Amino acid sequence: MSVLNRADALRHTAFKEGKFDGYLIFNSANLAYFTGFSGANALLIPKSGESVVYVYGVNYELAKAEGAGFKVELVKRGEDLMAKIAKQADSFKIEKLVVDVLSIEGGRTLAKSLGSEERLEANNGFVRELRKVKDEKEIKLLRKAAELTSEGMRVAYETVAPGVKEYEVAAEVEYAMRKLGSDGTAFETIVASGPCSAFPHGGCSDKEIREGDLVVVDLGATYKLYRSDMTRTLVAGKPSKKQKELHRIVKEAQEKAFDAIKPNVKTKDVDAVARKIIEDAGYGKYFVHNLGHGVGLEVHEPPTLGPDSADTLAVGNVVTDEPGIYLVGYGGVRIEDTVLVQKNGAEKLTNGAYTLGAE
Amino acid sequence: MSVLNRADALRHTAFKEGKFDGYLIFNSANLAYFTGFSGANALLIPKSGESVVYVYGVNYELAKAEGAGFKVELVKRGEDLMAKIAKQADSFKIEKLVVDVLSIEGGRTLAKSLGSEERLEANNGFVRELRKVKDEKEIKLLRKAAELTSEGMRVAYETVAPGVKEYEVAAEVEYAMRKLGSDGTAFETIVASGPCSAFPHGGCSDKEIREGDLVVVDLGATYKLYRSDMTRTLVAGKPSKKQKELHRIVKEAQEKAFDAIKPNVKTKDVDAVARKIIEDAGYGKYFVHNLGHGVGLEVHEPPTLGPDSADTLAVGNVVTDEPGIYLVGYGGVRIEDTVLVQKNGAEKLTNGAYTLGAE
Repeated sequence: MSVLNRADALRHTAFKEGKFDGYLIFNSANLAYFTGFSGANALLIPKSGESVVYVYGVNYELAKAEGAGFKVELVKRGEDLMAKIAKQADSFKIEKLVVDVLSIEGGRTLAKSLGSEERLEANNGFVRELRKVKDEKEIKLLRKAAELTSEGMRVAYETVAPGVKEYEVAAEVEYAMRKLGSDGTAFETIVASGPCSAFPHGGCSDKEIREGDLVVVDLGATYKLYRSDMTRTLVAGKPSKKQKELHRIVKEAQEKAFDAIKPNVKTKDVDAVARKIIEDAGYGKYFVHNLGHGVGLEVHEPPTLGPDSADTLAVGNVVTDEPGIYLVGYGGVRIEDTVLVQKNGAEKLTNGAYTLGAE
Repeated sequence: MSVLNRADALRHTAFKEGKFDGYLIFNSANLAYFTGFSGANALLIPKSGESVVYVYGVNYELAKAEGAGFKVELVKRGEDLMAKIAKQADSFKIEKLVVDVLSIEGGRTLAKSLGSEERLEANNGFVRELRKVKDEKEIKLLRKAAELTSEGMRVAYETVAPGVKEYEVAAEVEYAMRKLGSDGTAFETIVASGPCSAFPHGGCSDKEIREGDLVVVDLGATYKLYRSDMTRTLVAGKPSKKQKELHRIVKEAQEKAFDAIKPNVKTKDVDAVARKIIEDAGYGKYFVHNLGHGVGLEVHEPPTLGPDSADTLAVGNVVTDEPGIYLVGYGGVRIEDTVLVQKNGAEKLTNGAYTLGAE
């Protein structure tokens, strides 16, 4: 789907269901989604007429060169963006303008320019719904990001060893992905070893990995704005009985949850599959996060796969499947893949060994 | 200054000047500033009493382990964060609560929990003012980030050559910074060659650098949450007369602007120094952005150095000095350093050769 069709898709949902005739986009991921370009400041989509992209001088020529078929409007030095948008909304004869996300202060300024608070409404729901279902172009990019990520993980397996520092593993992984064409990391790489592996977002320090440490490696590449997310847990050296047991439980939870991922299934039911396995093994209270989240232009986006999620899976959703057990003072185990919901089930976009270590 | 003192500093400014008795932080950079930790979801600073950090399960144990002296409050699954904050505000007897940044929708929810719209006000100004002046601990981290960045630029000079792809240069630069202890890039590395160098944020593609191309390299390391920003423009091979001329003008603009950076000078006057040199050379309309911006926990933060800026420089400001000339269809030149405002002038935190190429 071209970006122009994405604006049309919004027209077909939002403008039909909602009682408004203009949609204003400020969120940067939403802007990239509709413009295919990462340097826009705002996008006004009228019910009818050509959409307008607002860009500051620093990105104006680039926006024109990448021209996705929208009208590109330069916001000049000293010019008031909100007043400019309000004027355009008037010329489109927009009666009710919906904005995806805007701060309280920005909302007040825009409402003032529009002449009334009633003309403005905040609602990110329609865009969020659209972005949950990835189109073919997006899936191609997500597939490539996942390929680069899997290759990064292969390098992590080669690099993790006693005496190596956490950040040295990250350096090798990121370098390998970059050399293959990644545009950068999808998030700050996590290489958390020993007791630090018990913190799900344990970071990556200058700590040396020690013999027998659990090492959680959580990484992702970005490719043409699309992201990926993958975790494996390794042991530097020979795993202990307890480490093997924790790994076996998490692996089973991850695989059974993967089998449950298909269209028309509630995301909270997928979470429940993994959570039950971990609970039955006696570690329920140590699985301290949701099973997963959507991945796309952002590394965390809808739908969410958690006990309180209201989402239902659909073909084209791309989500993570990442159960974990975290024992403070001891260490943690997490296994994660990025998964595409297909017509008859699911496909792992990230792929690679689950091996815990030299067994 | 410890993070606890930062909250006290806010009390000394905001609570004295403003008519309110509670400050609520949601912005992630502001949260890192006050908590020293990157996994918090909200922070409530009362006029008197112990501040409360709100954290979800995924980061709860880490927040406690990093414990900066704040009370850490777990936001449980299904719990309403806004209602929880409102209840705490009640128990602190907060009459007027100021929030740094919040969406229109979030603001409505919180106001409802507080029982009145009048009890809530949005104002990021006080925190923005505090963050503009870096304390000694911050300067140490910014200095280290700048060192790593300068080393990255040295590697860029070694790597740029005809036949090398833009992203291959980025890969080598990022790897070098990472191996020296960088936590990642401060922003997406720009290696823009040939006509693409005319786009200030021209990105970094799989394009091969050609003999005689102008190559804009804009990069930065992050070190313990603090960022840096540096640009050099190189020629792959022997520079032409025109390339040398453009480079000479931009270099003069950058150096003269640097000489103008000192306490009590208006940032718009520093911008004017660089802009006048470029205008006098006949390229005024091709300098399409501000001269600079603040750098700290974010790569773009206050103060701004532009023709419309209202800021005045002060000791402890850390800003970029980055004039440029961009000729669409031809190429661009930008030279940038991250600079610390000192008592008697300024100090370049990033440092390195200005050389254009094999001359």
